[in-house]
Amino acid sequence: MTGIIDVALRAGVAKSTASRALSGNGYVSAETRERVERAARELAYSAHSSASSLATGRTSTIGVIMPMADRWYFAELLAGLQQALIDDGLDLALYGAAEGSEERARMLDHALAGRRFDGIIAVCLQPGAHELERLAGTGLPLVSVGPFAEHADTVTIDDVVAARVATEHLIDLGHEDIAFLGDAEDADRFSFGERKRLDGYRQAMIAAGLEDRIRAVPTQSTIPEAFATAAALLADRRKRPTAIAAVCDEAAVGAIIAAQRLGIGVPSELSVIGIDDHRYAEMFSLTTIRQNPREQGVEAVRLLQARMQDAEAPLEHVISPATLVARQSTAVPRLDAAR
Amino acid sequence: MTGIIDVALRAGVAKSTASRALSGNGYVSAETRERVERAARELAYSAHSSASSLATGRTSTIGVIMPMADRWYFAELLAGLQQALIDDGLDLALYGAAEGSEERARMLDHALAGRRFDGIIAVCLQPGAHELERLAGTGLPLVSVGPFAEHADTVTIDDVVAARVATEHLIDLGHEDIAFLGDAEDADRFSFGERKRLDGYRQAMIAAGLEDRIRAVPTQSTIPEAFATAAALLADRRKRPTAIAAVCDEAAVGAIIAAQRLGIGVPSELSVIGIDDHRYAEMFSLTTIRQNPREQGVEAVRLLQARMQDAEAPLEHVISPATLVARQSTAVPRLDAAR
Repeated sequence: MTGIIDVALRAGVAKSTASRALSGNGYVSAETRERVERAARELAYSAHSSASSLATGRTSTIGVIMPMADRWYFAELLAGLQQALIDDGLDLALYGAAEGSEERARMLDHALAGRRFDGIIAVCLQPGAHELERLAGTGLPLVSVGPFAEHADTVTIDDVVAARVATEHLIDLGHEDIAFLGDAEDADRFSFGERKRLDGYRQAMIAAGLEDRIRAVPTQSTIPEAFATAAALLADRRKRPTAIAAVCDEAAVGAIIAAQRLGIGVPSELSVIGIDDHRYAEMFSLTTIRQNPREQGVEAVRLLQARMQDAEAPLEHVISPATLVARQSTAVPRLDAAR
Repeated sequence: MTGIIDVALRAGVAKSTASRALSGNGYVSAETRERVERAARELAYSAHSSASSLATGRTSTIGVIMPMADRWYFAELLAGLQQALIDDGLDLALYGAAEGSEERARMLDHALAGRRFDGIIAVCLQPGAHELERLAGTGLPLVSVGPFAEHADTVTIDDVVAARVATEHLIDLGHEDIAFLGDAEDADRFSFGERKRLDGYRQAMIAAGLEDRIRAVPTQSTIPEAFATAAALLADRRKRPTAIAAVCDEAAVGAIIAAQRLGIGVPSELSVIGIDDHRYAEMFSLTTIRQNPREQGVEAVRLLQARMQDAEAPLEHVISPATLVARQSTAVPRLDAAR
């Protein structure tokens, strides 16, 4: 059987260099890595990673626990995580399941029992399910992406501020009858981040003396679900708001498609604002609060690497930027539309 | 340090049962697994999976190589893979990178050099990049999801037939000026599956004596890119086709949004058909060829399990169903629109 020493000889490097190049742990130049990888291929060499792992005590694998929803935010975040982990020579073990699902609880147990990781990145932790406690109990380096994370390094936007700024933008334009699309007071059905955004909307409405106008319309945060919800909301002219603050861009886009279907002009008869700057935002001229989940993924890996280096360092909480991007889906309300 | 025997004693099961329950390999009842996992949690037991892996020669991890594109097909497929692997007690190591990218080539080398897997599932293999050869060289059980896979077990729809049936549907309605949206003769920029769909469109046009009308309009297969491409195509009334056969539903939806923006009636002035039955298809009343990528993911895991059991069994090629779903985006062409 071909050994690492054969690979090193063929590549003309030290055994330790060949090992570093193939394991992805420690520095080697791109050129050397290429030479070693070529030699390994030519010799059909396959490191037995379990043996290597026993020697170093490391698995070079990071467990990522996240919702598997077909949504822009998660796809972008996962792409950022993947990119940063590969750049660091780390593998990504994916555990995808909906927030709060029984499947997700099983995955947490599996991940805990197996301990196959050098660290864990958990996305959208749900406080009610005690997910953080279960993960923290492993003693493994842990980074949380999302608003809830009191006992871990975190990266997130400030969801309260994002929704407050979005709502204030509508209030500044002169809107008073502003509906929040995407959450309700029914805590079980919505994520912790969505709840924070509802809080931000409420804060802005209260600060503007519009407490009586607070109206949260529950919907799942996907374009088709929001489309159906908004179509029902907008169909009755007497109940129609002049503006919608959506929990995310997918909900906002669903509302715009519903308005178009009903012949309601956006922004002439209805203003719509989202949160995300989704890849579809420009196509729908959507005013939104921009965030960059891909960068959040890269940042999460940086935080995890730092935690793996120093378990005792103080906790780091990174607030990722979120800024208003004004497009053409928001405008001053029409006089005859304002009631 | 707590050992597996302590966990077994606390759970009141044999050591081998505790081991099976925690490794996910072999049968244990749900109740027993729960009891063992609870005991492991209570004792803060963490198996050293590397040691367990050395003993069994298995890693209980499947490498999944796929594009990381923010697209419905990949998200659904990944969800199906994740679900089936978790059900089988297997971990999913994700290697996400675009087809044909340098990053993807690096990932293949990494996956090969590390050999951390019991098997590999590769999605959308590109023949030009010799990806299949590189993967087959590992000797690991391999399943390919997508149209190219001569030397591996495969699951795929028949892309040629899907596009042919879609185009024939338009021809049967009376359309002659049918543009294919989503690929061109420039092989480098498009995936092997997209090329197959272009072939299916061409076959249908040729069979109907419409060879002179063949027109492939290149675009990336995302809604915003297809929106921009279709907007340019449809803006010039003299060059406007009466129907569009789109490479996938995302391209079809982009075309419908573009038509709406330009005030072109669908289907009164323009028929549009896709392939997928994307979650947005119903919202846009899109006629399409339905496929089920989630089931394809489950099927891929079944094929891989079979291959892991018997390396010598004959290759299995599963053609996943694809059926016409007629909605309201296709109709007989208007007399004044047909030229």
